[in-house]
Amino acid sequence: MIERLATMTAELTPLPAHLVREAVERTLAEDLGLSGDITSQACLPAEARARVVMASRQAGVVSGVQLAVEAFRQTDPQTRIVIEKPDGATLKPGDVVLRIDGNARAVLSAERTALNFMGRMSGTASLTAAFVERVRHTKTRILDTRKTTPGLRAFEKYAVRCGGGVNHRFALYDAVLIKDNHVGVAGGVAQALRRAKAHVGPLVKIEIEVDSLLQLDEVIAEGCDMVLLDNMNTDTLREAVRRVGGRFLTEASGNVKLDTVRAIAETGVDFISSGALTHSAPVLDLGLDIAIT
Amino acid sequence: MIERLATMTAELTPLPAHLVREAVERTLAEDLGLSGDITSQACLPAEARARVVMASRQAGVVSGVQLAVEAFRQTDPQTRIVIEKPDGATLKPGDVVLRIDGNARAVLSAERTALNFMGRMSGTASLTAAFVERVRHTKTRILDTRKTTPGLRAFEKYAVRCGGGVNHRFALYDAVLIKDNHVGVAGGVAQALRRAKAHVGPLVKIEIEVDSLLQLDEVIAEGCDMVLLDNMNTDTLREAVRRVGGRFLTEASGNVKLDTVRAIAETGVDFISSGALTHSAPVLDLGLDIAIT
Amino acid sequence: MIERLATMTAELTPLPAHLVREAVERTLAEDLGLSGDITSQACLPAEARARVVMASRQAGVVSGVQLAVEAFRQTDPQTRIVIEKPDGATLKPGDVVLRIDGNARAVLSAERTALNFMGRMSGTASLTAAFVERVRHTKTRILDTRKTTPGLRAFEKYAVRCGGGVNHRFALYDAVLIKDNHVGVAGGVAQALRRAKAHVGPLVKIEIEVDSLLQLDEVIAEGCDMVLLDNMNTDTLREAVRRVGGRFLTEASGNVKLDTVRAIAETGVDFISSGALTHSAPVLDLGLDIAIT
Amino acid sequence: MIERLATMTAELTPLPAHLVREAVERTLAEDLGLSGDITSQACLPAEARARVVMASRQAGVVSGVQLAVEAFRQTDPQTRIVIEKPDGATLKPGDVVLRIDGNARAVLSAERTALNFMGRMSGTASLTAAFVERVRHTKTRILDTRKTTPGLRAFEKYAVRCGGGVNHRFALYDAVLIKDNHVGVAGGVAQALRRAKAHVGPLVKIEIEVDSLLQLDEVIAEGCDMVLLDNMNTDTLREAVRRVGGRFLTEASGNVKLDTVRAIAETGVDFISSGALTHSAPVLDLGLDIAIT
Amino acid sequence: MIERLATMTAELTPLPAHLVREAVERTLAEDLGLSGDITSQACLPAEARARVVMASRQAGVVSGVQLAVEAFRQTDPQTRIVIEKPDGATLKPGDVVLRIDGNARAVLSAERTALNFMGRMSGTASLTAAFVERVRHTKTRILDTRKTTPGLRAFEKYAVRCGGGVNHRFALYDAVLIKDNHVGVAGGVAQALRRAKAHVGPLVKIEIEVDSLLQLDEVIAEGCDMVLLDNMNTDTLREAVRRVGGRFLTEASGNVKLDTVRAIAETGVDFISSGALTHSAPVLDLGLDIAIT
Amino acid sequence: MIERLATMTAELTPLPAHLVREAVERTLAEDLGLSGDITSQACLPAEARARVVMASRQAGVVSGVQLAVEAFRQTDPQTRIVIEKPDGATLKPGDVVLRIDGNARAVLSAERTALNFMGRMSGTASLTAAFVERVRHTKTRILDTRKTTPGLRAFEKYAVRCGGGVNHRFALYDAVLIKDNHVGVAGGVAQALRRAKAHVGPLVKIEIEVDSLLQLDEVIAEGCDMVLLDNMNTDTLREAVRRVGGRFLTEASGNVKLDTVRAIAETGVDFISSGALTHSAPVLDLGLDIAIT
Repeated sequence: MIERLATMTAELTPLPAHLVREAVERTLAEDLGLSGDITSQACLPAEARARVVMASRQAGVVSGVQLAVEAFRQTDPQTRIVIEKPDGATLKPGDVVLRIDGNARAVLSAERTALNFMGRMSGTASLTAAFVERVRHTKTRILDTRKTTPGLRAFEKYAVRCGGGVNHRFALYDAVLIKDNHVGVAGGVAQALRRAKAHVGPLVKIEIEVDSLLQLDEVIAEGCDMVLLDNMNTDTLREAVRRVGGRFLTEASGNVKLDTVRAIAETGVDFISSGALTHSAPVLDLGLDIAIT
Repeated sequence: MIERLATMTAELTPLPAHLVREAVERTLAEDLGLSGDITSQACLPAEARARVVMASRQAGVVSGVQLAVEAFRQTDPQTRIVIEKPDGATLKPGDVVLRIDGNARAVLSAERTALNFMGRMSGTASLTAAFVERVRHTKTRILDTRKTTPGLRAFEKYAVRCGGGVNHRFALYDAVLIKDNHVGVAGGVAQALRRAKAHVGPLVKIEIEVDSLLQLDEVIAEGCDMVLLDNMNTDTLREAVRRVGGRFLTEASGNVKLDTVRAIAETGVDFISSGALTHSAPVLDLGLDIAIT
Repeated sequence: MIERLATMTAELTPLPAHLVREAVERTLAEDLGLSGDITSQACLPAEARARVVMASRQAGVVSGVQLAVEAFRQTDPQTRIVIEKPDGATLKPGDVVLRIDGNARAVLSAERTALNFMGRMSGTASLTAAFVERVRHTKTRILDTRKTTPGLRAFEKYAVRCGGGVNHRFALYDAVLIKDNHVGVAGGVAQALRRAKAHVGPLVKIEIEVDSLLQLDEVIAEGCDMVLLDNMNTDTLREAVRRVGGRFLTEASGNVKLDTVRAIAETGVDFISSGALTHSAPVLDLGLDIAIT
Repeated sequence: MIERLATMTAELTPLPAHLVREAVERTLAEDLGLSGDITSQACLPAEARARVVMASRQAGVVSGVQLAVEAFRQTDPQTRIVIEKPDGATLKPGDVVLRIDGNARAVLSAERTALNFMGRMSGTASLTAAFVERVRHTKTRILDTRKTTPGLRAFEKYAVRCGGGVNHRFALYDAVLIKDNHVGVAGGVAQALRRAKAHVGPLVKIEIEVDSLLQLDEVIAEGCDMVLLDNMNTDTLREAVRRVGGRFLTEASGNVKLDTVRAIAETGVDFISSGALTHSAPVLDLGLDIAIT
Repeated sequence: MIERLATMTAELTPLPAHLVREAVERTLAEDLGLSGDITSQACLPAEARARVVMASRQAGVVSGVQLAVEAFRQTDPQTRIVIEKPDGATLKPGDVVLRIDGNARAVLSAERTALNFMGRMSGTASLTAAFVERVRHTKTRILDTRKTTPGLRAFEKYAVRCGGGVNHRFALYDAVLIKDNHVGVAGGVAQALRRAKAHVGPLVKIEIEVDSLLQLDEVIAEGCDMVLLDNMNTDTLREAVRRVGGRFLTEASGNVKLDTVRAIAETGVDFISSGALTHSAPVLDLGLDIAIT
Repeated sequence: MIERLATMTAELTPLPAHLVREAVERTLAEDLGLSGDITSQACLPAEARARVVMASRQAGVVSGVQLAVEAFRQTDPQTRIVIEKPDGATLKPGDVVLRIDGNARAVLSAERTALNFMGRMSGTASLTAAFVERVRHTKTRILDTRKTTPGLRAFEKYAVRCGGGVNHRFALYDAVLIKDNHVGVAGGVAQALRRAKAHVGPLVKIEIEVDSLLQLDEVIAEGCDMVLLDNMNTDTLREAVRRVGGRFLTEASGNVKLDTVRAIAETGVDFISSGALTHSAPVLDLGLDIAIT
């Protein structure tokens, strides 16, 4: 995994700065409230300094360093931080991710905010990387979904990229994805596709969900940019890929797990999407080890 | 579990309305952006209506109904909603939680926001209920931590209450929790406790973390409101509880899992806390089944 | 123009409600400040009512009714409003757009906010409709650009749709548009296209700007979703369209005016884009005629 | 025009910093969304630098440099910027306004935001300067109105000052302007003026609109700070100025165009106001020429 | 006092609705935080109702009813409220101001917010009315200053109006007030006045502060809209008023107290200003008497 | 007072930085609006500098230096500031608190904001210190209440600490305080206490208000963390303290004035609370003396 991720790391583009700043402001405000970190205020001298390392207790993939840095900087702009493992890097248990040196009260006030962001984002990156690893021998790529945590979509979609995954549409606004309900109302696959093509601008792609080969044939007849093959078994998927024949992209979803993803990829679909990357990845266990000086 | 939760449900107090409104506004804005749900706009007639049920595909405990209702109301204030299972209710697979009847575009635009909130919150409630169930024969209560999702602490702490758990401090501002790092800087357990008592007002409680019986003896000598017994095995925990002898509350943390929690509770500690309730609970699988009319 | 717009009006989808609410709140706050409409407070009895019509002094196309309604409702939720001409409708001089009946102070306080939104948006819709009218006999569609007023992009892109135009990408985030500068840095058309294809997800379209047939040939060899033919004369455009041969969409830009657009369209390009639709359209002259009762 | 503007430039006072910061934040957010400038991310190496000049393709007057500088600084605080032409300076075609040297992705991400602000503001400044030039031989000054773009009033009023114009009241809150509707409800000019004088504090000025010499005589009898002579021909305006005789200030409005303004000014009115300065000025055509190194 | 205030009450214009809504939202958020009113949640059944009267324990003048109503409505839109004493009304000890009937938890959660607004605002209104009463036999009016509570200026200026006072300028933006420091830098009274006249638009008034008759003579020679006579004794004030001779308005400030204000007013100044109205008025003692049903 | 405050000063912990930044931003925006400080713009050359001292005209205790520094920094980040008297320091009339050296326009624009914060906060600190001084010979501490200015609670609670006082609960969310109304609904002291204990988490303290010894006996029987003895005379307070016998903390409230507080303290209560500290403290008279250079 290392080589591929190393390459990918070079491609990673940072999160828009205003998103990072606002998310950290909101989260620190949530934890500090009107009176701040009353424990550190009570127990730590105002001038005490803390040297800290953020280290991993597990293997995984890093994501969220920008957010941790921002958290420590917002509580004290003078904090010095060394990034040992950038986003996208793989971790062994015990690996140091960050070295932090700053005012003790400021560092401890920001600790939980930094860890809450990085633990979640690294959890998603790590689970994504595990899926990516299992399909490496194929041309299939791993996609996320819109099943993200409210308010954190930009960060979780970014974490998926850190793990080697690819982003599906970001939101309701940037691509058309016609689901069964839309098909139902529109009166069929062909009608729904025609309405969509008439409605959207030239830079918007159109994907449609089908759950049978019969529906797929209608899509093939009408044309689209991508088809979502939902809840099909691998035999059906293989036949679907054959019928599409490269006219447009194919995506498989449903029952995607670490032990099923390889077989799904081997059907030849272009993409496999999984909501679990963002809605059910356990946190990566990161901790702060402090040496106050 | 039903009886206890039923009772508890009656005790559940709703989330402050402004938190609900703002969280839903932010999340809808994240999904709708500047151009809205272009798929529904393209494929659904403006006047089409949708009757929908939100149903569970799993057993679990409901949490987050207020947020789902707010999401459907914000996209269309005329939407009619019937709550079949209120927060705190237990669910069997297939149980209907909500019935929704409204404008089809509005309902489908809000669907993902509603599910993203309720899936996560019900996931936390369900995991909490599982822990609570395992310690029901003891007097031990299950506590959460500050290891919550950035921006969603109020909702996740509420979800813990829906599952029968109890909230630890909310944030850095509302109680003192002296950890090993604070002890180190302050020069020992006794000094840290004395600093804390001198600093805080009369309505702030003080808890201190210890990792040995030696440290515990110092705490007993000095006094506090609660002690956090971190990463002790059950024999040590039992001895710790004995030494405290009811002078103050006891909390165990570390290695708390569904298959260890019973043994920990049986040591006699008052509380067991688990970060996993909020940082690693998988979502509860809820879905929207639509019948457009 | 009437029939086409009438059809199109049926397709118009409303602006996301939160955008409308926030834009009107900000604009009313800008005009009312801390002390409100001191003229109306001084000169109008608190209980006086006003019956008002918003009428057009010019021919044109309506856009922005939602914002005017919101402005009158925010200053007084009891205001009664009848929409005589919905967004997308064509106007003759003297046509009534809205009938408003409400508290006189509230109506006059909101007047300028309502007119400032509708005048600008209707100005853009009207100019767009004039361009659309001139290319009606061809298959060419009129596109907008990102040259919009800061903070008002969603409204101006919507106004373009009201006038029968089609939206180009919304922003930097929803499609790739490789301009000459990007080509320069990337080391050529082919390299830039390859980098873009490797980088973006499957639901993002890629357009590239070329200013010569030589560059166009490179694009044809490499493939893309759309090509922007910048500042070419009509002969070159015609040849470019011929070479593309329907492989991907074509867009012409540069020197697009009401008296040049027809000739450009007749070259066979799929789209013609114009910044002037949003950056230099004069307002449509709308006014409020008041009959206080 | 040069001398007068040069003097005026020295008098220009910068926009309040928080307005500039917030307007640029909102506009960058509008363009960058949750995923940022995906084209620059894909096509430009992370470390590439760009040297850029912002130059004018037209003659005109500069306005908005603060906003452009803020846009480039917000995307990269390290960006170096040289201001060749400050706000209020006159431009020939080809003149360089700004020199910018910074990270290529950051510069290109901010380009459209910077140009969208400066193009509009310089358009207003240029149109204002054209009006000012035509009345230079008289004592008449050019005034703006409240017909400004929603959310951008402070910037557009400032642009009017850059062009040598003078600001009318800023909003509904800072001066009384009694219009015909107010007169109607109050029961006449005298009553409206008396109500206004009784209502407002000693530091608020009162202006009243009249559309006949008859009404003007009533205003003269009652007294005010300024009178708005609406839609009068030049003969009537001349007579109105004579009757007022310097007792208070006079303002003419209605049918104010570049080819009528001179004659209106020669009637001797103190001020001429024009909504077109802010609602219908075409953008000044500015562009960014990039030399990536 | 009653007659005059009764008249004035009719003239009172309500606060802009968005200011009221936002101020109450922010204040309720400050008090409710992430977990709400935990006492009411614990001790009051969810469905209990409360009938409450807000009554005064002191004589005074009411101000802030809008804010109290908004607070009770935001916590429960169903709350029924009867206004017994509107803003500007005089109160005897024991007078009932509001009758409130709503959900008990909602009413008690909003109680402190409502009282904190109304107590302060009524305190300012009451102190203002006391000053106004002492100068009633003269033509002198009582003015406020910019010495207001951060974030609450609109409400405190409004409270001054409720008490029969008149508002000085609202802020730095709506009028010129040249103080001694400005005079010093500008190089004298005449120069400062000339700079101000050259700088500001025609609808902005200019006031200048002087502390001697010598300076006053310079102001008289140069002209202005109002003069602030700072810290002069009553003999000097009387002479200053004589010298001004009605050319412009006069304002006295400095050593303005309840037992000095009458003598100052009798010097013939048009206005007397006092910072104490807003910075040092004690709260009016209002309380909520609850009858839970 | 000096020694005690000197010690205390060392213990003072700064306000959370985001609260300071946001409060100053909001207050400067309130004063500068859309056009800024038009007096300084008109009368002061753009490059003029000002050296200023903030001095006290009264004896008192400093509070709010952070906010003043932030105000001067926000209007000009280059401003140099020397803190002569930190928060908690005692002042004699004439003492210099701050020395400020910066751009004249920036300094004068921020002056009123800085003084409005510091005057109010120092007023509260000074009144608190006066109460503290009177009970110095006892063990009794002075507490604040929730009767704070809307939007400024964090600053006023901090000012109480600057004056040597102790903070009661911050808000409705961080401690339970059962008042007579809650007791009434719950059906008595014992029931209310039992409901509270069942409801809240282990880190929340519970206080209950009683107004008779009879009620106090019920509280003693049931147990709590603190009791609020409301409106009792000193004999009753003494008896109440005797009955409590150290089982929990005692707080007296009602009729607490500078000339009664000593006698109340001598009854042996642990705390005395006073709303007047935050709702009725007159400002400390601070002023800016300017020497423009």
